[in-house]
Amino acid sequence: MNIAVAQSGGPTCAINASLVGVFKEALKTPEIDAVFGSVNGIEGIINDELMDLKLAIRSNDDMELLRQTPSTVLGSCRYKLPPVAQGGETYEKILSCFERHRIEAFFYIGGNDSMDTVAKLSEYLASVDSKIKVIGIPKTIDNDLPVTDHTPGFGSAAKYVAATVQEIIRDSSVYSIQSVTIVEIMGRHAGWLTASTCVLRANDEIAPHLIYLPECEFSAEKFLEDVRSMQAKYKAVIVVVSEGVRLPEESKKQVVVDNFGHEYLSGIGKTLEQLVKDNVGCKVRSIELNVMQRCSSHICSKTDIDEAEQIGSAGVRAALGGETGKMVYYKRLSDIPYVITIDTVEASQVANKEKFFPRQWINDRQNDVSPEAVRYFLPLIQGEVKIAMKNGMPVHFKLLDVRS
Amino acid sequence: MNIAVAQSGGPTCAINASLVGVFKEALKTPEIDAVFGSVNGIEGIINDELMDLKLAIRSNDDMELLRQTPSTVLGSCRYKLPPVAQGGETYEKILSCFERHRIEAFFYIGGNDSMDTVAKLSEYLASVDSKIKVIGIPKTIDNDLPVTDHTPGFGSAAKYVAATVQEIIRDSSVYSIQSVTIVEIMGRHAGWLTASTCVLRANDEIAPHLIYLPECEFSAEKFLEDVRSMQAKYKAVIVVVSEGVRLPEESKKQVVVDNFGHEYLSGIGKTLEQLVKDNVGCKVRSIELNVMQRCSSHICSKTDIDEAEQIGSAGVRAALGGETGKMVYYKRLSDIPYVITIDTVEASQVANKEKFFPRQWINDRQNDVSPEAVRYFLPLIQGEVKIAMKNGMPVHFKLLDVRS
Repeated sequence: MNIAVAQSGGPTCAINASLVGVFKEALKTPEIDAVFGSVNGIEGIINDELMDLKLAIRSNDDMELLRQTPSTVLGSCRYKLPPVAQGGETYEKILSCFERHRIEAFFYIGGNDSMDTVAKLSEYLASVDSKIKVIGIPKTIDNDLPVTDHTPGFGSAAKYVAATVQEIIRDSSVYSIQSVTIVEIMGRHAGWLTASTCVLRANDEIAPHLIYLPECEFSAEKFLEDVRSMQAKYKAVIVVVSEGVRLPEESKKQVVVDNFGHEYLSGIGKTLEQLVKDNVGCKVRSIELNVMQRCSSHICSKTDIDEAEQIGSAGVRAALGGETGKMVYYKRLSDIPYVITIDTVEASQVANKEKFFPRQWINDRQNDVSPEAVRYFLPLIQGEVKIAMKNGMPVHFKLLDVRS
Repeated sequence: MNIAVAQSGGPTCAINASLVGVFKEALKTPEIDAVFGSVNGIEGIINDELMDLKLAIRSNDDMELLRQTPSTVLGSCRYKLPPVAQGGETYEKILSCFERHRIEAFFYIGGNDSMDTVAKLSEYLASVDSKIKVIGIPKTIDNDLPVTDHTPGFGSAAKYVAATVQEIIRDSSVYSIQSVTIVEIMGRHAGWLTASTCVLRANDEIAPHLIYLPECEFSAEKFLEDVRSMQAKYKAVIVVVSEGVRLPEESKKQVVVDNFGHEYLSGIGKTLEQLVKDNVGCKVRSIELNVMQRCSSHICSKTDIDEAEQIGSAGVRAALGGETGKMVYYKRLSDIPYVITIDTVEASQVANKEKFFPRQWINDRQNDVSPEAVRYFLPLIQGEVKIAMKNGMPVHFKLLDVRS
């Protein structure tokens, strides 16, 4: 039998590690012959653009480099499958590609949109009595998938954000004058990544002084009051804010939406900067961590990368065990010592859903998070991967184009 | 005798390493008793806010942590001394602070504005027949100081920028559609840091495809033509641009200036993003590396940090050798193997001057740089500092407040 694997959605530092997990587990499994990589997610299956990964990943060094290369080496897509009842032609193309290449299991590494694909595709395959297995392997820096304790890719993003916000704290504290620094962090609807900056308290940082999540109520008046009250105590006030936080007056504005109905947001950092400029009048700066928070492999979390590989492997074992239409997920058994296991859940229970930051970990004033949050986040950023360097720069794995 | 040291101007990753260099050399020198740190640059001398550094830096571990902590541990300032002929009172305060604390040598770590302070202060001290020595120790991520081969702090900024642009290249290349990614890099008038992204070619990257420096002519028409011609070859076009690059039509706009007459610029990235959106119509994103490029110690250059410490030590030796009104600087003797020595030059030859990226290293089309530039930049980003980690995050040195 052969298998196929694809990557979907926004890049992370860990999505290639899950690919390595699938690949390695296949190598260990005598009944698996070829491992095909689908180019640009499910689009590669639909358009029959596959690579033989055994020709592309040719040594243990290649596997290690791929593990520490950010983004999706097979490319990605934001393709939404039509409802099974209406999408005959698309599903037939997929089935025909699977059959042509004797693919008996398909692994889709992605977020909640990709789990929608896993759920629909397995539903279709069942409806035509196909025995082909479909397994979802989670990833997203947003950490907003239901069921799983956390998501592959999140720990590395959180580690980069913590290190960078700490450096920004140092940078912001040099002058004798009062200042406000606003750091805008990814997170449309869920504030996990922004909240994770609380880990800095484990290293005796007081900042960030104010933490704003999209789960909370927010207003210009409250924000300015918070800033002024922090300025009474701190010369350089550090604010972290999720990109999805919005002023009530803003929510009336027109927004652009993508194929999945996601809104394109941006600019809360700049908006708050302007508010401080107009109303407080001190030195103020806003900083957007932008794509760096999802691709800075040079400071990835070893825990995240190792777990991402393990969950990829677990996906293969689930398919071989006869499961389909499932997503593999992390179940946390203990914080200290940190212990997880990997289990499976119906992909439909995860598809198109979001998990929000818990209300009980947010303070009454809705501008900070609790020590329980620190305890939750800390294990996820532990450990450093030994990054391969050449000429003073990290080495990235590059896939030769070996489409079959 | 006692000595004093201060830090000035914008933060870098290496300015604390130069402080360690001064401190360590003082410890090795039996005739030096106290080492005072001046809080917030020359302002600390004027206002008599000094710290006894031997009380603040208390072990070899402290010194190592300080070397790898970004920004300026003593605080900074943007204070410009008045002309010697008119500034009687300010200079008398400085002299009185020096005399009160038996300070016989003062070390000022900073950029070309700080060298203005070194030149004026030594001129004043000579005019009142004082034997107190004043030595400038360079630093700036802009690499724009005359005479010196390069500046402390630049190598670490360049290493961060190279690693980050490489990660952005991976991140930008995942979808099957055409895209343009614009990375805005610091540099008001000199394009050194933007140009340094050419080092990625040593690791077989083709991108960045277009490199725009403030030293070059620039126009919207030329930019769009360049982008279109790169799109014929590459799906994901990567553009790097110095913050100081301006469209001819922009130069007529009002600009804000600081105490030193520097213009506050921002936004060329966003401007170019809008240009592509309006005229090319493909997916486009702009990314500002912001303060991260000057404070990301977690990926600093070992060469830079080691040299920054050495040049701090060399400053102390210059003062003990009787020099004053001088800046210590790097002289490059060879690229491969890379060899430098440290020498001194009159601070007045550096003060308020800028060194631009060489015209002969820029291509005719003024959108790229030559292999000579790669050869110049590469040695500066070599080597990694073993970063002290705690709880999965870098540890920063924090100065106890021990003002004397």
